[in-house]
Amino acid sequence: MSDKKLNVIPLGGVGEFGMNMMAIRYGDDIIVIDAGMMFPDEDLPGVDIVTPDMTYLKENRQHVRALFITHGHEDHIGAVAFFLAEFDVPVYATAFTLALIERRIEEYELEQKPQLRPIRPKDMVEVGPFKVEFIHVTHSIVSCVALAITTPLGVIIHTGDFKVDPTPTDNQLFDLHTFADYGKRGVLLLLSDSTNADRPGYSESERAVRPRLEDVFNRADNRLFVSCFSSSIHRLQQLIDLSVDFGRKVAMVGRSMNAVTEIAHRLGLLSIPDNIMLRPQDIMGTKPNKVTVLISGTQGEPMSALSRVAVDSHKQISITPGDMVVLSSRIIPGNEKTIFRMIDHLSKRGADVLYGSMNPPLHVSGHGYQEELRLVLNLVRPRFFVPVHGEYRQLARHARLAEHLRNAGLEETFICETGDVLEIDERGARKAGRVTVGRICIDSGAVGEVVGEMVVRDRRLISEDGIVIPIVTINQHTGKLESAPELVSRGFGLESDKEFMRAAREIVVKTLEASSAEEKTDAGVIKEKIRADLKRYIHRNAERRPMIVPVILEI
Amino acid sequence: MSDKKLNVIPLGGVGEFGMNMMAIRYGDDIIVIDAGMMFPDEDLPGVDIVTPDMTYLKENRQHVRALFITHGHEDHIGAVAFFLAEFDVPVYATAFTLALIERRIEEYELEQKPQLRPIRPKDMVEVGPFKVEFIHVTHSIVSCVALAITTPLGVIIHTGDFKVDPTPTDNQLFDLHTFADYGKRGVLLLLSDSTNADRPGYSESERAVRPRLEDVFNRADNRLFVSCFSSSIHRLQQLIDLSVDFGRKVAMVGRSMNAVTEIAHRLGLLSIPDNIMLRPQDIMGTKPNKVTVLISGTQGEPMSALSRVAVDSHKQISITPGDMVVLSSRIIPGNEKTIFRMIDHLSKRGADVLYGSMNPPLHVSGHGYQEELRLVLNLVRPRFFVPVHGEYRQLARHARLAEHLRNAGLEETFICETGDVLEIDERGARKAGRVTVGRICIDSGAVGEVVGEMVVRDRRLISEDGIVIPIVTINQHTGKLESAPELVSRGFGLESDKEFMRAAREIVVKTLEASSAEEKTDAGVIKEKIRADLKRYIHRNAERRPMIVPVILEI
Repeated sequence: MSDKKLNVIPLGGVGEFGMNMMAIRYGDDIIVIDAGMMFPDEDLPGVDIVTPDMTYLKENRQHVRALFITHGHEDHIGAVAFFLAEFDVPVYATAFTLALIERRIEEYELEQKPQLRPIRPKDMVEVGPFKVEFIHVTHSIVSCVALAITTPLGVIIHTGDFKVDPTPTDNQLFDLHTFADYGKRGVLLLLSDSTNADRPGYSESERAVRPRLEDVFNRADNRLFVSCFSSSIHRLQQLIDLSVDFGRKVAMVGRSMNAVTEIAHRLGLLSIPDNIMLRPQDIMGTKPNKVTVLISGTQGEPMSALSRVAVDSHKQISITPGDMVVLSSRIIPGNEKTIFRMIDHLSKRGADVLYGSMNPPLHVSGHGYQEELRLVLNLVRPRFFVPVHGEYRQLARHARLAEHLRNAGLEETFICETGDVLEIDERGARKAGRVTVGRICIDSGAVGEVVGEMVVRDRRLISEDGIVIPIVTINQHTGKLESAPELVSRGFGLESDKEFMRAAREIVVKTLEASSAEEKTDAGVIKEKIRADLKRYIHRNAERRPMIVPVILEI
Repeated sequence: MSDKKLNVIPLGGVGEFGMNMMAIRYGDDIIVIDAGMMFPDEDLPGVDIVTPDMTYLKENRQHVRALFITHGHEDHIGAVAFFLAEFDVPVYATAFTLALIERRIEEYELEQKPQLRPIRPKDMVEVGPFKVEFIHVTHSIVSCVALAITTPLGVIIHTGDFKVDPTPTDNQLFDLHTFADYGKRGVLLLLSDSTNADRPGYSESERAVRPRLEDVFNRADNRLFVSCFSSSIHRLQQLIDLSVDFGRKVAMVGRSMNAVTEIAHRLGLLSIPDNIMLRPQDIMGTKPNKVTVLISGTQGEPMSALSRVAVDSHKQISITPGDMVVLSSRIIPGNEKTIFRMIDHLSKRGADVLYGSMNPPLHVSGHGYQEELRLVLNLVRPRFFVPVHGEYRQLARHARLAEHLRNAGLEETFICETGDVLEIDERGARKAGRVTVGRICIDSGAVGEVVGEMVVRDRRLISEDGIVIPIVTINQHTGKLESAPELVSRGFGLESDKEFMRAAREIVVKTLEASSAEEKTDAGVIKEKIRADLKRYIHRNAERRPMIVPVILEI
């Protein structure tokens, strides 16, 4: 046996939601699992996407061997382009996942042609000391795999995202048997999806949506618009099947809807009967009760097809009173306002909109609930357990769900957070320090440019109480003021209060008067004095804390 | 009969969520129903509360006769202080509602002593041509009333907020009979709460929470913290009753929790057995399974008691592993992130936290679902119907729920939005123009100061792409530059890109060179030229749109 150590290092997605990425290292070999992004919240104004900080991988550049992707959701593939810009190593994933990755990385100009290696469930790949087997799991996107990684110290199982759907619409069952086989032989470490660890019971099968959608088709007697995530191939298949049953043609509207369904169709994952498709330009000319429109934009994204239809600015489609619009998806927290604004617009045009809080829901979750998580725990019976994919509360709850395994071989559960290093050797497992991690903010308006934490912090500060800029011109020879100090401000709220602004300018004058000639010729010192005095004055008199940025012009 | 017209004018809360306010005018007499606030979303950085624009009332100052308040929630009373600062008229509400209003207006220094007039259900108040009867309704706060307003043209019923709780915990039933009586005699107009118009079926009774909370008490074998809205007196009563049953003492922690329960107790609305209360300073010294802590902060408000406990900065209380924390409330959309962050902290300290997405829910809604809304519609059978309290999609759905009344006397449903004037006379009802409405943003840091729309817009703009300030010193005599142009920026993202900043400064120099001496001495013209050139340059080369604020210093 070896005296090398195994390190398991979450670089994203553990103790936070999104941008999943995990490094697994044995000796001098590192493999990486998933490279996802997250969408920023209002804390990061002007930022479009957020990716994990890959400093640890860059510092160990020569050891990085391969990237394994469990499935094609953005929080697992959204940072692949940024990863490949740094590391020219093979990427292993199912054909469908690779196709989605290709579509994403086309937006970026990579120097090399990426080494994309399609795999299928049950395939085995050897990379250095690691043997990786792919195991089919069910989830809200097709072609998902879990990974069983055999290392010199034992087997690590990484579930990816999953639910245990007993009746998947494509009849591709969750591969319980392979999980059971590994469990029987002994698993060193389980890394398992915690997204729904706070929901008791079992999630509903994707098939449970069918009768509810059928009810919608029964009630619709005009055009029927349905929006869901374009990657929800199972959902789209059900909608196409129902359209056939109800004699409706199907139009796909929206860039991602067309691109993803085209990929799924080409790979045999989406069955589209002959003569069912309708071109978007023919929608308005077809009898309203003979059309289903599958349309992008379930989260109210401003440039999406559905948002444009909602404000009647779509080139080919408009809502007529009596149309039905179904949002067959969850409302991602943070998107409520945008989605509801879109629904309001659709309602104003006379559409009957069915959405989130409707009951029964026209959507089911793709992540397993507590009993499914227990099922996987019981099948795998790991020696060590690390809950992944979730915020702290979900990880903590998932850890509780494993407590009963104490009598069945579970030695310890580690609640790790992004950056924690879990070290495993012959003697056992323990947390052993941290590596550099963080959020890299990307402003895609600036062609994928990175926005520094500092810049984002500044924007946030300014957005609270505005910015005040005192400007002073000092003669660098005499140290004297060349003109009265200027005070420029924006977003501060007292711009138009002339008396206040005059008094504030007076503060700057006084600060300068109270400074020695030596201080006045040291721009750093004089800036700091002005900032401090002005800050105190503004806080006392206006109870605000704008950002204060003194400017000294030397002439 | 009269030839005067009746105007019904929503000044807030119709087609938007929160800040409910409604003016009803007959001839030269105006009464106002509710004066609420809303909490701002991330669109309004630095704003603490938002209140309705009362321009219409100010323009008709001499006609405003009285304010009627339906119940004590912030979205109905939060703007009373601002209303009273303008209009010294009587305020009619139940004793409990008035006590909450008094507590709120103490924060502001009103010039006059407010004329607060307590009323009870079935009371009748005459104001000018209006006779107003108060009708008891059930809701998540105690002492709620609907209003039946008899006008020369007929009766208007305003439901306030309500659910039809068949088994309220205080056995104060929804007064179906009075609604039925008015319905039998004929109602001109119904204004009814639409908050849950998109939820099918009936809401659960407040009493349904009891067995679920009982289950929590059964499972808790350490300290039990429960947080709910401090105005949820029914909920607090159940928690006190359960504590008695389970032999736990009760501590109230948090300013609002103490203040509101004190009011409710004084008014006989909350029954607190002798010797049950525990002082906060005695919590940690009491046996853990003998304490229930009722604590403020269910929405994760940063300064609330529960938030402070979560980060272990509360003076008297800390979490010990095994404690249970229950959030017995809904998650108000927009607060998810703050609440979840608090839950994560509580989890890290070893607390078992039960919250929102748990099933069965430890909270029920205070607003009626579709069948309750239909019940009220069927009892009242109005001639005209205006759904209120909701965003457009909810109003539209509520309107659909009334369709069957077409055969029972309903002439027309109007989906109004804030500012729409509904005009009613002998001939019927119709929309008749709009009045000035809007949102007044209050920055409470600055002692209730109004923040202009412009300031808020500036903050929002700057928060997107930052701010760039080109500074030019021009000798006002010669028209020449006195120094090289400066470029100050914050939140822009290219501050540290020296090459870019140098090139941008160069643009300013070129703009000046290309300007005539006449232009250069006109600060307005030269500012606009610099702004335009720099904007174009930055957009082309960095694809950003920062706010650009040129400063011209003349020396």
